[in-house]
Amino acid sequence: PETKLPKVGTTIFTVMSQLAADHNAVNLGQGFPDFDPPERLVEALARAMRDGRNQYAPMSGIPTLREAIAEKTERCYGYRPDVDAEITVTSGGSEAILDAIHAVVRPGEEVIVLDPCYDCYEPAIEMAGGIPVHVPLDPHTFAPDWNLIRAAVTPQTRMLMINSPHNPSGATLDADDIEQLTALLRDTDIYLLSDEVYEHIVFDGARHESVLRYRELRERAFVISSFGKTYHCTGWKVGYCVAPPALSAEFRKVHQYNTFCTFAPAQFAFAEMIRDEPEHYLELGAFYQPMRDRFREQLMTTRFKPLPVPGGYFQLVDYSAVSDLDDAEFCRWLAIEHGVAAIPLSPFYGTPPAGQRLVRLCFAKSEATRDAAIKRLEKL
Amino acid sequence: PETKLPKVGTTIFTVMSQLAADHNAVNLGQGFPDFDPPERLVEALARAMRDGRNQYAPMSGIPTLREAIAEKTERCYGYRPDVDAEITVTSGGSEAILDAIHAVVRPGEEVIVLDPCYDCYEPAIEMAGGIPVHVPLDPHTFAPDWNLIRAAVTPQTRMLMINSPHNPSGATLDADDIEQLTALLRDTDIYLLSDEVYEHIVFDGARHESVLRYRELRERAFVISSFGKTYHCTGWKVGYCVAPPALSAEFRKVHQYNTFCTFAPAQFAFAEMIRDEPEHYLELGAFYQPMRDRFREQLMTTRFKPLPVPGGYFQLVDYSAVSDLDDAEFCRWLAIEHGVAAIPLSPFYGTPPAGQRLVRLCFAKSEATRDAAIKRLEKL
Ligand SMILES: CSCCC(=O)C(=O)O
Ligand SMILES: CSCCC(=O)C(=O)O
Repeated sequence: PETKLPKVGTTIFTVMSQLAADHNAVNLGQGFPDFDPPERLVEALARAMRDGRNQYAPMSGIPTLREAIAEKTERCYGYRPDVDAEITVTSGGSEAILDAIHAVVRPGEEVIVLDPCYDCYEPAIEMAGGIPVHVPLDPHTFAPDWNLIRAAVTPQTRMLMINSPHNPSGATLDADDIEQLTALLRDTDIYLLSDEVYEHIVFDGARHESVLRYRELRERAFVISSFGKTYHCTGWKVGYCVAPPALSAEFRKVHQYNTFCTFAPAQFAFAEMIRDEPEHYLELGAFYQPMRDRFREQLMTTRFKPLPVPGGYFQLVDYSAVSDLDDAEFCRWLAIEHGVAAIPLSPFYGTPPAGQRLVRLCFAKSEATRDAAIKRLEKL
Repeated sequence: PETKLPKVGTTIFTVMSQLAADHNAVNLGQGFPDFDPPERLVEALARAMRDGRNQYAPMSGIPTLREAIAEKTERCYGYRPDVDAEITVTSGGSEAILDAIHAVVRPGEEVIVLDPCYDCYEPAIEMAGGIPVHVPLDPHTFAPDWNLIRAAVTPQTRMLMINSPHNPSGATLDADDIEQLTALLRDTDIYLLSDEVYEHIVFDGARHESVLRYRELRERAFVISSFGKTYHCTGWKVGYCVAPPALSAEFRKVHQYNTFCTFAPAQFAFAEMIRDEPEHYLELGAFYQPMRDRFREQLMTTRFKPLPVPGGYFQLVDYSAVSDLDDAEFCRWLAIEHGVAAIPLSPFYGTPPAGQRLVRLCFAKSEATRDAAIKRLEKL
């Protein structure tokens, strides 16, 4: 019989990581650090297993982890979410995104996404029977055009999804964006999904404009974060959602019948780490900034033109001086012929803009990996 | 605004575990062993973390784990699923159930479930827009009535969900059931979801009638298992789905946008454990059988009447000699007044049968826990 999800293909991250492996390419594609989580976190996880923390965790997460998240949120954003009613631990940021959408979006309702956006947004909306409405970000700065977004709102709009620091561009929302966003949502019933998985990776002393700082926004928002990004362990798949009690209740209705709960020993480890080493998340921007700076410097010796990177661990580069191929073809060629895996931007769009010559490189890599990639890019 | 999922409440497992904690009750409710996974598994997981296996696993699972699953399946059921195309590792059995349903069930299509059934089936079907069609199992033996099931089939039937060994009853399908199931599905387009998370816990020398043994069935089936059950680590949340290539492809479309991948270090640990210690899963029935036998013997000294337990780690007991309360009220009373947490059966039904006086006790517990519970039950 014909399939239910004919439009869904394999994610670009899987495709490019496979291509990287097959062609022995330096993998700057799929976003993950090639270094390890803090030793203390690993030890704490091992200890939790030996302490017998191996059976189901509570559905919403273990209390000490939710408390640690509440403390971290208060310290960073001046707002302390309720430990019982407002925080839910999930099996990664993507599960949280899917759960939030399924919790509130009914068949036929519209969800506004800002293109380019992370590739799971659209299929998650469609699985819930919702209709993704694509609004472009500025093609150069990747800033939202609030007038365009406002024009996309209809009586069917159920949710707006934002993402700062932004994947793939690294763009961040500023205080002015927050003001415009607040005005736009005021007097509507539109929910906000704020994907803040790179919340602790912001550069140049800027502050992360978390939705959680702003009462009017957080009262209608699902705010999503990911320990994989904060603790260099993308393969551990632990994230969380902060939402007001009524929304958290709806969120948990989905979560409890999806994964039900999340790998318990890691929850104990993250609780300890967040509580006892706040420096880690407070200094994550400072940890990544030299990598970003050095990588950008090195790119100057190539014909790839780096765009600004205010946050996250991705560097967009313009390759138009190197090739005329479209971005998907260019990435295949770059991986196969030149041994560097990158991510094309077109899969992040409903309709990719014609003639865009940008690809994404992940700089969350050891010096050796970055040097090896640059050496190969210099030949082009 | 009104909620999208008004019917969904908190799972009975969360409710009863909370009640058990609040009232210091012996917890025979939520199904989990109160002993630890094999030490070797814990050590292998710790080693995987130290070996740097901390970034994203492949979306379908690491190859060595999929190979181990293929080997285990061949050894147990005489069928070797294709490592690349037919096996997907998930963040627990429940994620796999939700993914399989979302992969094929379209809004308005019917899914037949056999009551009583595990409490996530119905909400997962409804989240996909499907319509659960409840067919009762025999109220005494919990065997399927294949004529009743056949009568429930309509042109809208998209999937049939079965579960052996069965939660909550422990009933198992036999060769005759398999024959009737095969005849029923022959010449239809109906998919089969076979929840076999207790596959390795069968008693009295019986063989588990996995759907994977039977070509005609497995060609249309999603077969789901759970390492939490097999390795005493329900809190680790690792399971998998075996399905033919075309169905696995659809399954992965959902999985990749849900959790994307599963806690990587555990995958390395399970791969090693399955490969190097097949005795563990081969002897799991023999491991649990003395617990079952002893627990049933002990129940004879109480006024609770144990029903037969061919598989799984749950014991149904008839409490009609003890109380006239309905099962939900009885379980509250039992936990609060007598310090034993059990699970009522009514949440496992679309429409609970009137006057049923059965509750579920989990016997996957240390001797001390079981003794403590029995001591309390004896007072009734
Ligand atoms: C889930 S694989 C993709 C990882 C990621 O966040 C990215 O590369 O953008
Ligand atoms: C996900 S909590 C429920 C555990 C379980 O399988 C059961 O108790 O039936």
